[in-house]
Amino acid sequence: MATITVAARWSSPSRLQLLTRRRLPFSASFSSAAPPAAVVGFGWADALRVTSDGGHGDKSDLSGYFRKVDICNRGMGKKGQFVEFLVEDQVVGYIHKGFIEHLRDFHDIFTIVSGNSGNSTVEHVSFHSLLRTPEDRTHAIGSVIKSLGEIIPGIRNELYPVTSSYGMPVYFSLERAAAPYFGIKAYGVHMNGYVEKDGQKFLWIAKRSDVKQTYPGMLDHLVAGGLPYGISCKENIIKECEEEAGIPRSISTNATSVGAISYMDIEGFRYKRDVLFCYDLKLPADFVPNNEDGEVDSFRLIPVQHAANIIRRTEFFKPNCNLVIIDFLFRHGYIHPDSRGYLDLLQSLRSGDCS
Amino acid sequence: MATITVAARWSSPSRLQLLTRRRLPFSASFSSAAPPAAVVGFGWADALRVTSDGGHGDKSDLSGYFRKVDICNRGMGKKGQFVEFLVEDQVVGYIHKGFIEHLRDFHDIFTIVSGNSGNSTVEHVSFHSLLRTPEDRTHAIGSVIKSLGEIIPGIRNELYPVTSSYGMPVYFSLERAAAPYFGIKAYGVHMNGYVEKDGQKFLWIAKRSDVKQTYPGMLDHLVAGGLPYGISCKENIIKECEEEAGIPRSISTNATSVGAISYMDIEGFRYKRDVLFCYDLKLPADFVPNNEDGEVDSFRLIPVQHAANIIRRTEFFKPNCNLVIIDFLFRHGYIHPDSRGYLDLLQSLRSGDCS
Repeated sequence: MATITVAARWSSPSRLQLLTRRRLPFSASFSSAAPPAAVVGFGWADALRVTSDGGHGDKSDLSGYFRKVDICNRGMGKKGQFVEFLVEDQVVGYIHKGFIEHLRDFHDIFTIVSGNSGNSTVEHVSFHSLLRTPEDRTHAIGSVIKSLGEIIPGIRNELYPVTSSYGMPVYFSLERAAAPYFGIKAYGVHMNGYVEKDGQKFLWIAKRSDVKQTYPGMLDHLVAGGLPYGISCKENIIKECEEEAGIPRSISTNATSVGAISYMDIEGFRYKRDVLFCYDLKLPADFVPNNEDGEVDSFRLIPVQHAANIIRRTEFFKPNCNLVIIDFLFRHGYIHPDSRGYLDLLQSLRSGDCS
Repeated sequence: MATITVAARWSSPSRLQLLTRRRLPFSASFSSAAPPAAVVGFGWADALRVTSDGGHGDKSDLSGYFRKVDICNRGMGKKGQFVEFLVEDQVVGYIHKGFIEHLRDFHDIFTIVSGNSGNSTVEHVSFHSLLRTPEDRTHAIGSVIKSLGEIIPGIRNELYPVTSSYGMPVYFSLERAAAPYFGIKAYGVHMNGYVEKDGQKFLWIAKRSDVKQTYPGMLDHLVAGGLPYGISCKENIIKECEEEAGIPRSISTNATSVGAISYMDIEGFRYKRDVLFCYDLKLPADFVPNNEDGEVDSFRLIPVQHAANIIRRTEFFKPNCNLVIIDFLFRHGYIHPDSRGYLDLLQSLRSGDCS
């Protein structure tokens, strides 16, 4: 089966944008045997150029995968720059000592507790004691985020439920873009859409629209999204299947939960603590995805081993997609125990606080 | 499809043994809705009695799975009773301070290093400095194990390679039954053999021979075994498939590596640190297993959800098989994220030092 490219239904504007060749969030790198790194946008041709198995070392070299895990788990040595964010005596997040300065003016919303030792070292942050209900806290922190303007860029107008761990009571809800500034754990769903033909597996890969606010133009899962408040993982997958790839409920209801991956990433004031629930969906061989929300430029169906090689050799995939696809490669036997580092890599996929 | 029972080829003696109803290694327990716990041997009828979904609470109750993980991870508070076993300055194991007393007479084999503080607190154990090659160490520790007689029961005459982590250089080899007394990490392979029919999955389950030295009469994987020295995981699976279930290489070569689980268990002088490489093999619907090494009494093909219910409600499975099948339940969507405790249970499957 040859690779198949499908342009998304509303892809015209974003395809024009391709001409602008915007800078990627981080540089793309290749193995030493590959051409020099491209630091500008890339097209499918660039991605497919690195898929061949010839001349790039053997498949049991896991080093390219380790690098992708590292990219999602930066700054672990900087945990000391953050203090706990407590609600009802439970740790719900972590706030950078520098970011706390932006919160000091909101006396009636946050209580910033300093030590008794005479210095002003902050020990933890909590809501003001008068903010007792989830609704009150949600409204109050929402107004702070609005006031802060571009200090928290990329507002999505999507609310995330905040808990101490998944499935526990919701203390309040928070704008998605603000979650890392408060070190809130965020949950998402990612789905590997694949096709099996003559015993060989193929993954449907999306290329994000060049006008997407985050990670424009990068490779992505067929279907993925944050987990908003009040919807189950399975219902969210079914909804995203419809919106992102035009997969009808009659097919998406077969999406199978297969585990979860997690990571923790510190950069500046941001402390990302993400848990992604992973799904596999085996699609009919003749299925063709059709983006309905304008977030995807185009789709390609490529052999799983080719997707693996893109992950190992480039930084073309949105970083967290790498981890979910590496997990897929483990579960489907593409990464096997006779490769050196197998167990370390496997364990690193759940290196965050997976709870 | 009804459940199918297949008597193993050499099952006659062990089936007679069934009449003796030997005591299980630990008591079998049921949920409150089930009959009282049976502490003697059990038959297939006992196992199948608990498989129905009716009247036993809902499938999203994960508490029965948590208990099975706990059974494999006992005694973590007793780590302080053990000291490191070093080879070439690398930690390869842990030895109980009480067990060290059995090693003191072997001055030319072990060096027992005590602290300088005047008391005789042991700090670590290593080989005597004259034992420099893997062959010398293997021979020396082998002679100690032989001398100790019934202090280390159940000698298998199977050598395990000892490394600091999987795939690293082998420092020496050690009798399998002695591995927990030296806190050596042991690696094994476990294979879920399953059949898919009309969209429903069935697991082939083995019942161990009643004359097996370990875990007699208990439920087990279709194929599982320790990983001996000098053989890859995949080759080991193929070999065990032939010996334990009569699966020809033409089929077993399709066994797919799907990850690994790990656990650490302290009981008395024994510190088990096990890593199991997990495989799935989708078998033809008409395949019938055939035990060729006399270790299995009989096989049954049962719906996956029934196997799940046996795991949740009884202790009929050999303890570590529970973990590998729970991992199967995660990967195949039988345990899903909308169950409370999903992430904790998932993380607990790799709670050992998975390296």
